[in-house]
Amino acid sequence: MRRSIATVCVSGTLDDKLTAAAAAGFDGIELFENDLVVSPWSPAEIRRRCADLGLTIDLYQPFRDFEAVPDELLKANLSRAERKFGVMAELGTDTVLVCSSVSPAAVDDDDLAAAHLSLLADRAAAHGMRIAYEALAWGRHVSTWDHSWRIVQRAGHPALGLCLDSFHVLSREVPPDDIAGITPGKIFFLQLADAPHLRMDVLQWSRHHRLFPGQGAFDLPRFLGLVLSAGYDGPLSLEVFNDIFRQSDPARTAVDAMRSLTLLEDRLAPLPAVPLTSPAPTSPAHLALPAPASAAPASTPLRDSPASAALRVSPASAALRVSPASAAPRVSPAVPLADRPGVRRLPPAPRLTGHAFTEFAVDGHSGPELRTALRGLGFAHTGQHRTKPVELWEQGACRIVLNSAVTHPGPAAISAFAVTSENPPLSLARAEALSAPAHPNVREPGEAELAAITAPDGTSVFVTHPGDDWRSDFLPTGTASGPGAGLLTVDHLGLTQPFDHFDEAGLFYHSVLGLDHLPTEEYAAPYGLMRSRAVADPRRTVRVALTVALLRRGEWAPAVSDPQHVAFATADLIATAQALSLPPLPVPANYYADLAARFGLTDDFVATLREHGILYDRDPSGGELLHLYTPVFGGRVFFEITERRAGYDRFGEPNAPVRMAAQRHRRLTTTS
Amino acid sequence: MRRSIATVCVSGTLDDKLTAAAAAGFDGIELFENDLVVSPWSPAEIRRRCADLGLTIDLYQPFRDFEAVPDELLKANLSRAERKFGVMAELGTDTVLVCSSVSPAAVDDDDLAAAHLSLLADRAAAHGMRIAYEALAWGRHVSTWDHSWRIVQRAGHPALGLCLDSFHVLSREVPPDDIAGITPGKIFFLQLADAPHLRMDVLQWSRHHRLFPGQGAFDLPRFLGLVLSAGYDGPLSLEVFNDIFRQSDPARTAVDAMRSLTLLEDRLAPLPAVPLTSPAPTSPAHLALPAPASAAPASTPLRDSPASAALRVSPASAALRVSPASAAPRVSPAVPLADRPGVRRLPPAPRLTGHAFTEFAVDGHSGPELRTALRGLGFAHTGQHRTKPVELWEQGACRIVLNSAVTHPGPAAISAFAVTSENPPLSLARAEALSAPAHPNVREPGEAELAAITAPDGTSVFVTHPGDDWRSDFLPTGTASGPGAGLLTVDHLGLTQPFDHFDEAGLFYHSVLGLDHLPTEEYAAPYGLMRSRAVADPRRTVRVALTVALLRRGEWAPAVSDPQHVAFATADLIATAQALSLPPLPVPANYYADLAARFGLTDDFVATLREHGILYDRDPSGGELLHLYTPVFGGRVFFEITERRAGYDRFGEPNAPVRMAAQRHRRLTTTS
Repeated sequence: MRRSIATVCVSGTLDDKLTAAAAAGFDGIELFENDLVVSPWSPAEIRRRCADLGLTIDLYQPFRDFEAVPDELLKANLSRAERKFGVMAELGTDTVLVCSSVSPAAVDDDDLAAAHLSLLADRAAAHGMRIAYEALAWGRHVSTWDHSWRIVQRAGHPALGLCLDSFHVLSREVPPDDIAGITPGKIFFLQLADAPHLRMDVLQWSRHHRLFPGQGAFDLPRFLGLVLSAGYDGPLSLEVFNDIFRQSDPARTAVDAMRSLTLLEDRLAPLPAVPLTSPAPTSPAHLALPAPASAAPASTPLRDSPASAALRVSPASAALRVSPASAAPRVSPAVPLADRPGVRRLPPAPRLTGHAFTEFAVDGHSGPELRTALRGLGFAHTGQHRTKPVELWEQGACRIVLNSAVTHPGPAAISAFAVTSENPPLSLARAEALSAPAHPNVREPGEAELAAITAPDGTSVFVTHPGDDWRSDFLPTGTASGPGAGLLTVDHLGLTQPFDHFDEAGLFYHSVLGLDHLPTEEYAAPYGLMRSRAVADPRRTVRVALTVALLRRGEWAPAVSDPQHVAFATADLIATAQALSLPPLPVPANYYADLAARFGLTDDFVATLREHGILYDRDPSGGELLHLYTPVFGGRVFFEITERRAGYDRFGEPNAPVRMAAQRHRRLTTTS
Repeated sequence: MRRSIATVCVSGTLDDKLTAAAAAGFDGIELFENDLVVSPWSPAEIRRRCADLGLTIDLYQPFRDFEAVPDELLKANLSRAERKFGVMAELGTDTVLVCSSVSPAAVDDDDLAAAHLSLLADRAAAHGMRIAYEALAWGRHVSTWDHSWRIVQRAGHPALGLCLDSFHVLSREVPPDDIAGITPGKIFFLQLADAPHLRMDVLQWSRHHRLFPGQGAFDLPRFLGLVLSAGYDGPLSLEVFNDIFRQSDPARTAVDAMRSLTLLEDRLAPLPAVPLTSPAPTSPAHLALPAPASAAPASTPLRDSPASAALRVSPASAALRVSPASAAPRVSPAVPLADRPGVRRLPPAPRLTGHAFTEFAVDGHSGPELRTALRGLGFAHTGQHRTKPVELWEQGACRIVLNSAVTHPGPAAISAFAVTSENPPLSLARAEALSAPAHPNVREPGEAELAAITAPDGTSVFVTHPGDDWRSDFLPTGTASGPGAGLLTVDHLGLTQPFDHFDEAGLFYHSVLGLDHLPTEEYAAPYGLMRSRAVADPRRTVRVALTVALLRRGEWAPAVSDPQHVAFATADLIATAQALSLPPLPVPANYYADLAARFGLTDDFVATLREHGILYDRDPSGGELLHLYTPVFGGRVFFEITERRAGYDRFGEPNAPVRMAAQRHRRLTTTS
């Protein structure tokens, strides 16, 4: 299967976009008209540049507001189209996307729309070209895929087919199931985009908030399966309008896009062997605004059956008629799609079993601070690296590596973390197939071989086997790791992500390590709104909480820049808190007064929490989180200790603003 | 009238917020609960801090999900309220905002809601406190101000009144007119916020996109007039949730907020002497989503008439009844509100008559580039400043000042511009009253006295009289200003605004100089989305186009940083283009091919445009813009020449991406 990307997905001028698409391994592009218009290259030069880069131009788009208009306007529109056909010929592309009209001049008349599109298809065919008609979700009269398909059927023109865009289809209420029944060969083009569920105007949703497949909430593997069932064999093409991607490094966005398509292809599951005419089990339609009062799913499959084909009328005829639809339900093909030739499969994601270690880069200023903090948390300095200025600190199954071999002094940072996998080579092979190649760790002879992949925030992610003896690189200090303060294991890592790469990071962990996305949380913090989305394995042995500011922070920035933290799990936070020799971050008394009012907790329990600086959260199912924070060390990092009760599966996000304000207060009071 | 601001309006911890509010001259605050919860200060300490700063705590907010719930929950809610009353007593505030419930546990029963609120008011009264009940626009059962008023009337409790929030009122379909008929004394609190018209979920609209009055689309002078007509004499309090304000310098945001309130007060017009029960002439209600199927305006005024007061039942009674409403239309008060004691009036904004000069700061690198450019545009170097390294360049009524007295070398910048006013002292007095005090220009004895105010982007804005002889500070060079290339005057300035201060800038020019906001335009540029909003005087003698990136730009930034430009007007752009000795910015051939298709222009006309590098735009009324751009000079600035035809009143925004791509192409090809 060929992979394509619309130029509108990435930032820059056309040159930037083509270079990025080619470098990421795409086979072709959709050329967005504006990118052509602002380019100093002629269409013929663009064609040559694409050929040099190994890219085909698979689609020219969009051609707007064409059909079902008064004669005078139709004439002007056809003349406009002829000019575009000329450009397309120079570009060497044969398919143009015509999206359903949003013009006030358009009338609600399927016969007229079909007649006009037939006229246009005649003109296109004369140039050896074809028309891919797409129902915009906010089209004036045609806004659903089944409606566009009825019009294409009425026209019955060989040079007129459908363009299906997953956003336009899945953002509306008409279920996608009957797509599998579209006449083979009549889907001319396929555009893929994901999106989060948002309650907003569908046009704004589409223009600003699309995401690459796997980054949003749409079931794209199922959608793609339906389209392939209809015999579609054109490119899988991404068309994503996203405010952030529009202004971030195009080279990185294109890699993110390719990773997304690779994962999607891998996810292609066999279709269920049930009639495809049943409504989709879960439709996001109710989330799209404005929602129609009643949205009855189409119950009749729309197929271009042999019987209806015989009834086709001349495209230019004014007396176009609807083809009678077959009443027979269409069933899925017998051959699972995953076995379809051309579908590339990824190495499966091996099961992860936990966090092996977390490495901090420290310098002469932050190193001592971190050591004091670890000691206060009950860690023991158990090992010293054979050849490098690197220390191992342990408590229970928690292992912290302090690496002083930094070349540039600066705030402390989580430079690397290691997870354990049941099959590290397979994990690394999967990463490689997802455009995240592993690089070998710098090492000396005799040292354990560890390979790392680089996460979007620059952190190295090592994948080790539980049996790997990487600790043998460390000479024992003679200090044993004791029970300390009862810290058992790493509960999660908290990593602030670069603004431009938050969704990229989510997809990276999701695809490369096979972690699931947990629900996105947004909250108001003292210096602006924050977004948090964690990834975790199903058994919750590995959790990474990714956070980002909702707006890139600017000149007024009293907050810690890009904070990072490690949260350790304990079975009894109150006992752990009593065992700490490090004072936890002070929590305001006002917090506890509010907590009591909010959750109806007993005064005794609140007093105990308050005594130890412990924060509290409860989820709707009654799961509870007790957690405490430390101050910030080394200018950027801090620690958390968590006790999860009754299956609490969040991260205490409502308490994050309390932590931020308290950390700032401490900075102000300890530096003055 | 007292002026207050909700702590949620500005960024930071409580200390930052209180300091900012006091410095900007506010009399009081609304304390948002989260700001209290994260504060290390006890309520008593907060009270003292506010007193020290001269601030009163006018409202504690919000108290959520209280009313119309099952008995068990009511009990818990009352207990929760008791805890908050305790906190309020320590804070020394007596009014709490109770917003209509969004809880699934709440039932749609006005009698029950009134009974519960009466119970709560009883409890509040026991503490000497009162309840301000507010209809959230997305309340589960109570979402309009008139509904909240009916419930407050049913309760008939002296310690229960309304909180009116302009956003919640004006974002919904119920007209605000009948607010003037609310029983005097029953509006306990007034919250003011503006907003742009947006088609989105009302909750998201409210939580992310509110603006200060005068920055959005709501008619707040009229709204405030209605509230004052009902006898409201509490504080005018701003409550603005805005993603950008939440993360920008609180000191500046608070000044912006104060400027907004000052302007709003000044705008208080006499109410029309017509019955207030007629529907509002223009209601933004249809823009709020989700919109109900039919939104009939309330036709019966809701007043607490003496007759209905006699029918009040005991608040605790289970048999609450609705008070019969008076059928008499309420008319506006006889005394114009503007004459109301306590309303502060601004010096009126004198009429502006044009741009006097534009000053560029240049250094040894950018100075020569700018001189070459001005010469190429037909400018003559006519004057040299008597005491400073400052040159005057002229053509027609266009005057450019090149100031080489820069202390820090860097890209060229528009450091100042001057407009002519019919009464400069009055203009400056108005600016002073709007927290934008003028600072005297640094000058030597005998030089013209010019005073400037500082715009939010740091540009100095001089206000001069058309008769001012500021040019006498310049010694003639002997070169006369000739017809040049036919540039007549400054059409507009184009100033990129700092991301955090775009709305502040709009309000600054609108309030201080009395310029009107023109419609906001958004467009996709090569490096991300852009927003543009111009301000102009009614006769279009002064225009400033303010632009900003929709997202703050980050690490990938090949664009010119914060570009600025001056656009000059000509009566005949083709003749001007022929007279230029500076080659204009090259425009791609693809642009002209698309132009022909888009507008149906004749081939001859397009060929002429193309020959001279002229871009073209047309508005829906047939107004036309012909304009051309220069390359970027001095790393940051460029020029534009415009010819407006048939009343074209925009700025050719669709062509901005063409310019940006062409300017980048030129940078790449001339630096390589």
